Amino acid sequence: MLLATEFSGLEEDYWHLCEHVQVWDVSVERQVEIRGPDAMRLVQLMTPRDISKTQDLQGRYAPLCNPQGGIVNDPIAIRHSEQRWWLSLADSDVKLWAQGLATGFQLDVDVFEPEVYPLAVQGPKAEELVSRLFGDRIKGIRFFRGEMFEFKGCSMYVARSGWSKQGGFEIYLNNADLAEDLWDELYKLGEDLNVGPGSPNLIERVESGLLSFGSDIDDSINPFECGLDSFINLDADIESLSLPALRRIAGKHRKQLMGLVIDSKVDRLSPIITFKNKKIGEVTSQCWSPRYRKYLAFAMMDRAFLENHSTVEVDGIDARISSLPFSADELN
Amino acid sequence: MLLATEFSGLEEDYWHLCEHVQVWDVSVERQVEIRGPDAMRLVQLMTPRDISKTQDLQGRYAPLCNPQGGIVNDPIAIRHSEQRWWLSLADSDVKLWAQGLATGFQLDVDVFEPEVYPLAVQGPKAEELVSRLFGDRIKGIRFFRGEMFEFKGCSMYVARSGWSKQGGFEIYLNNADLAEDLWDELYKLGEDLNVGPGSPNLIERVESGLLSFGSDIDDSINPFECGLDSFINLDADIESLSLPALRRIAGKHRKQLMGLVIDSKVDRLSPIITFKNKKIGEVTSQCWSPRYRKYLAFAMMDRAFLENHSTVEVDGIDARISSLPFSADELN
Repeated sequence: MLLATEFSGLEEDYWHLCEHVQVWDVSVERQVEIRGPDAMRLVQLMTPRDISKTQDLQGRYAPLCNPQGGIVNDPIAIRHSEQRWWLSLADSDVKLWAQGLATGFQLDVDVFEPEVYPLAVQGPKAEELVSRLFGDRIKGIRFFRGEMFEFKGCSMYVARSGWSKQGGFEIYLNNADLAEDLWDELYKLGEDLNVGPGSPNLIERVESGLLSFGSDIDDSINPFECGLDSFINLDADIESLSLPALRRIAGKHRKQLMGLVIDSKVDRLSPIITFKNKKIGEVTSQCWSPRYRKYLAFAMMDRAFLENHSTVEVDGIDARISSLPFSADELN
Repeated sequence: MLLATEFSGLEEDYWHLCEHVQVWDVSVERQVEIRGPDAMRLVQLMTPRDISKTQDLQGRYAPLCNPQGGIVNDPIAIRHSEQRWWLSLADSDVKLWAQGLATGFQLDVDVFEPEVYPLAVQGPKAEELVSRLFGDRIKGIRFFRGEMFEFKGCSMYVARSGWSKQGGFEIYLNNADLAEDLWDELYKLGEDLNVGPGSPNLIERVESGLLSFGSDIDDSINPFECGLDSFINLDADIESLSLPALRRIAGKHRKQLMGLVIDSKVDRLSPIITFKNKKIGEVTSQCWSPRYRKYLAFAMMDRAFLENHSTVEVDGIDARISSLPFSADELN
């Protein structure tokens, strides 16, 4: 499945997302459903984050790691009930990974891709728009929580979540026949809110420090290298297949995803960063920030270099090295 | 990764492939390497085809099936040595499936995607062209066998194989820096052979009865339904995770992939085939055959319907139902 990345242009989409409300067709955000007596055990095996206290209809950002500690995917794990979970995916084929594990561990679960097509409503006016559709009950939902709502007689999961920091909801549409109606209804209800089409926006997510699987992370990267430490419960008494490796790696990783800040608008940076003819980093995402008037990038940097440097020369240009997410001080 | 599907147009590419020689950049045909003491055990677990007698540097078309009997992928399994195999893939993420199984079964293997970028040379003049590059030793290679050959000091696997029935070879390039040189060299050596660019060709593969994973098959289809019976060793004494299910299913499957032949050029057929207002089949691939002057399709048909019918009406047009691959009688 393909995902549209721009509608009116990257910058125009960005300002619109930050000021109004956008409807994103993120059907491409596939769900892997895990259902059966061993569902929770399988989800816990896959993630080093402790999911034992997750409540029904709650989601948790849960990096999935392999036995070497590499990140297979970084989905939201949504608990519908103890025996029914969804993994709301980034880009990789977690269905086959989960099925392979279930087969090998002889778990009593079904693993499949249900007919669910998420629609994200994002932006500062998202709550107003979604409440016009589903009623004021939506306003009581906390971040990464959800409830069931009806649209045209069809009950579907709606959560306060989405891949931007502008706030909003994701509607997990489970009846493709209602897709156009849902889209049209949001447009009708949102006309005075300046509703428009959108999609995950490069500028917004780089400014916000949101990582993209496939660009910034993949299975050669462990959670410590990309700053996901706080989602790994190293001391938890849980059965997770990556925890032994992650406990060994913790603190000893040799690279770290950092932010780069350049004070002027520059051409696209080369991916490889060198210092004294040696590769010391790799740019994984980059964009011009029209809000802060800085050129921003993520780069996977050698920690040994970071010990003695707070700036680095990239393509002959000086960049400040920043932790992620960027702090207000670094951007302003 | 994306794959180009046409160069001079589908029909022109088709005639060129059948009459001359084409170079196909099928880098997209990823390899999953399985290496270690349990490599052969893992490959055998994944496929219901008996691989025990595979020789070094031999490939076998080996459908991979899950415990329900569904087809996860239909690669060529290539044995480099007992402890080193490649799965030369169709479209699905077998690396994660194999890693999941290896983790669950606690197998002593590494599963990874090596830096290998296959280049196919296909067509009746392929052997002549490839022998100009690698020497006459190439002519002694039998179908689905291979040997190591050198190009610019780099040793790589070359096999007599490829996703057409026009004959040819696949060069498993393992050094991306040599890719342009290899391409240019084949063009230089093949100028008088009318060498040109190409890719798997819809017309050629439908005429030849070659199935496409993702179009004709996926994990909801078992090997009996798509005529792969001869690649399943139901009676073999092997440890394969799909064999128990396949033994139960054998002969009892309710649908069957068939050919459809229409004697005139028609518009693209609707996917769903009905009879007396009931769905009895689904078109999965289709094209106009300029050679036979017939419109050809593959369709997954209800076996109950097939018992009493040798023709079916599709979009108001009569189609003859044929077994696959199409026989010469049916095409001429």
